[in-house]
Amino acid sequence: MSTTTNTVVLFKEDPGRGWVEEKHMEVTKQDFNADAVELKEGEVLLKIKYLSLDPYMRGRMQTKAKSYSAPFEIGKPLQAGGIGEVYRVGKGTTLKTGDLVLGFVEWAQWFVAAEKGLKKLEIFDGVPISYNLGVLGMPGITAYGGLMKIGEPKEGETVYVSGAAGAVGLLVGQLARLRGCRVVGSAGTDDKVKVLLEEAGYDAAFNYKTVKSLDAAFKEHCPKGIDIYFDNVGGEMLDVALTHMNVHSRIPVCGAISQYNASEQYGVKNLMQTVIKRIKIQGFLSTDLYGDQELVKNFTKDVVALVKEGKIVYKEHIVEGIENAPSAFVGLLKGANTGKQIIKVA
Amino acid sequence: MSTTTNTVVLFKEDPGRGWVEEKHMEVTKQDFNADAVELKEGEVLLKIKYLSLDPYMRGRMQTKAKSYSAPFEIGKPLQAGGIGEVYRVGKGTTLKTGDLVLGFVEWAQWFVAAEKGLKKLEIFDGVPISYNLGVLGMPGITAYGGLMKIGEPKEGETVYVSGAAGAVGLLVGQLARLRGCRVVGSAGTDDKVKVLLEEAGYDAAFNYKTVKSLDAAFKEHCPKGIDIYFDNVGGEMLDVALTHMNVHSRIPVCGAISQYNASEQYGVKNLMQTVIKRIKIQGFLSTDLYGDQELVKNFTKDVVALVKEGKIVYKEHIVEGIENAPSAFVGLLKGANTGKQIIKVA
Ligand SMILES: NC(=O)c1ccc[n+]([C@@H]2O[C@H](COP(=O)([O-])OP(=O)(O)OC[C@H]3O[C@@H](n4cnc5c(N)ncnc54)[C@H](OP(=O)(O)O)[C@@H]3O)[C@@H](O)[C@H]2O)c1
Ligand SMILES: NC(=O)c1ccc[n+]([C@@H]2O[C@H](COP(=O)([O-])OP(=O)(O)OC[C@H]3O[C@@H](n4cnc5c(N)ncnc54)[C@H](OP(=O)(O)O)[C@@H]3O)[C@@H](O)[C@H]2O)c1
Repeated sequence: MSTTTNTVVLFKEDPGRGWVEEKHMEVTKQDFNADAVELKEGEVLLKIKYLSLDPYMRGRMQTKAKSYSAPFEIGKPLQAGGIGEVYRVGKGTTLKTGDLVLGFVEWAQWFVAAEKGLKKLEIFDGVPISYNLGVLGMPGITAYGGLMKIGEPKEGETVYVSGAAGAVGLLVGQLARLRGCRVVGSAGTDDKVKVLLEEAGYDAAFNYKTVKSLDAAFKEHCPKGIDIYFDNVGGEMLDVALTHMNVHSRIPVCGAISQYNASEQYGVKNLMQTVIKRIKIQGFLSTDLYGDQELVKNFTKDVVALVKEGKIVYKEHIVEGIENAPSAFVGLLKGANTGKQIIKVA
Repeated sequence: MSTTTNTVVLFKEDPGRGWVEEKHMEVTKQDFNADAVELKEGEVLLKIKYLSLDPYMRGRMQTKAKSYSAPFEIGKPLQAGGIGEVYRVGKGTTLKTGDLVLGFVEWAQWFVAAEKGLKKLEIFDGVPISYNLGVLGMPGITAYGGLMKIGEPKEGETVYVSGAAGAVGLLVGQLARLRGCRVVGSAGTDDKVKVLLEEAGYDAAFNYKTVKSLDAAFKEHCPKGIDIYFDNVGGEMLDVALTHMNVHSRIPVCGAISQYNASEQYGVKNLMQTVIKRIKIQGFLSTDLYGDQELVKNFTKDVVALVKEGKIVYKEHIVEGIENAPSAFVGLLKGANTGKQIIKVA
């Protein structure tokens, strides 16, 4: 096979504060010959199969703000975690044509990668390989690490998860439930709430967009207060949740997606609750969790096994075609996805 | 001796949100005969010598809000930690006339207390007994516990303390310095800043009311960022400090005095920094710390010894006369005190 084009999505314009739109990204077709493209020593050519779209990318589109990952460069391809199939290999590589690998790639159909940044996938019967971008991958370890290391769930505790029907949230609730906690989740559509209750084993769930008030929702669904609030959304949800936290409760702060496209950041007023209730609020990053060998070992033992045995339910929101990645990314930030947002490239 | 009156300060009116004023308290003179007042079994009559005024009392004046200590009752005496001399004892007590004790008393000259709630004071040469309400007492263990257990200072780290010239803050900075940290403090007058720099050994200090901006002050005084922010004040200070925190930094939240009299609570906008920098924000209460025997043991070993040896400098702001307690309390909340606010009753 030899192709003549590579569809690549470029970062076109900094959306600044406010909503990211499709116009901030550009789908381009670049001349490309898979059989002829030059590979340096240690490089391999990947035919990309799946891309992971993640909320943190919104932060990388803010070229003027300092965040934990470098901003995308205007005019350059957007980047993402992805799964590729090795199509050709350069000198001094150990991977072989046909190997499936996980790595950091571009929003594109083809990508030349340094072999040393890639991880060869283990294939498990009945487990979709795209799960390596979700429950078995970065969102998975995020859910596991945030809940276990910071949340430290104990039997009988109430665990509340916002963004519960998303890539991270879906897993958090199930893990907490397996630890004997009562699990409550919120999401932005009634369909998602149904998934939480009927598929993901949440004990209670509500649609945060249609409840009378967040305060009333907590009173109803967390009558004994909250021991762990796994926070995916920040903003007003965090503010109100603070007033329902129990003594010595924990808030692993995973993200604040409600603020990523907000032209003005919401101001959280109830932080004095941290003293009154001796609450721990702690942020964390998956990159740190990957550095914790003990945790990674436990994650593999616990979660990978549970998924292989079908004891954890997982969902993917798969959009086909790299050219649809920009709209899917905007959709992810607006709540179009249930479970992990994936682009099926090939 | 027999007296005919007991001056007692009553809680007169709930100040609600907004500033507490002297009119919310009432100084009364009650008929009282120290030699005749009835003592039940296990009770002793205390002649109060010192009272501790503390910011948390403002919370107890909010009769409608839930806090960690019960609200004061309208028309009843205000309460406080205090030091008293045993004047008379009831049946079945082990204390003796003349013993000095620490306990929970009223804003008054005389108080009948249950012996079992009292602690007999150890007297150290050259150490004022009122220190038992400050550096050797509740503010002391608060400073020590918050810094050590939550802050976990490491040599070479930058520790920033707000409310640094107060009862808690004065000690935090000195303890952090003894652990090899670089210590930066802020306070609300130039005189307090001078005390921090010239007496309490702070490496840098600023007057938060007169700096060009808090952001500029942090840039100047914490050029390497902040590893531990010991937060006494909350509000805008916390918000701006969040943007100067280092990776894996810690914020022991001791209190939020800037908000205690605010008619509207300040909204903190920079909480996404907790994720970006993996910050831990954790509230704590002295009551919990007293329950940690290991900590109390270490506190006694470290701090009491350092104070006895004169290696820790401490300050008291002593106001004479129980009738001046209401104005002193308002003053405490407005920053009139340097070091521990004490009322010398007798
Ligand atoms: N710390 C880390 O290392 C790390 C790693 C991965 C993810 N994260 C963070 O974790 C969070 C979830 O990530 P994810 O990958 O699992 O994404 P996700 O939940 O699969 O997708 C994002 C979801 O956020 C919800 N959302 C959007 N706007 C919202 C708003 N204003 N208020 C409340 N919810 C809103 C939407 O669902 P609804 O229909 O419910 O609104 C949307 O489906 C994000 O904040 C992300 O940045 C952090
Ligand atoms: N968690 C616990 O168990 C515990 C125990 C004790 C104390 N605390 C808390 O720790 C903090 C300090 O207590 P403390 O006993 O040491 O009191 P303190 O610092 O001796 O006295 C209060 C000081 O707060 C400062 N202040 C007042 N309004 C302020 C504002 N708007 N912004 C910034 N600073 C302001 C004033 O000094 P300036 O001149 O600097 O403004 C005042 O002197 C308080 O928040 C208190 O509630 C907590």
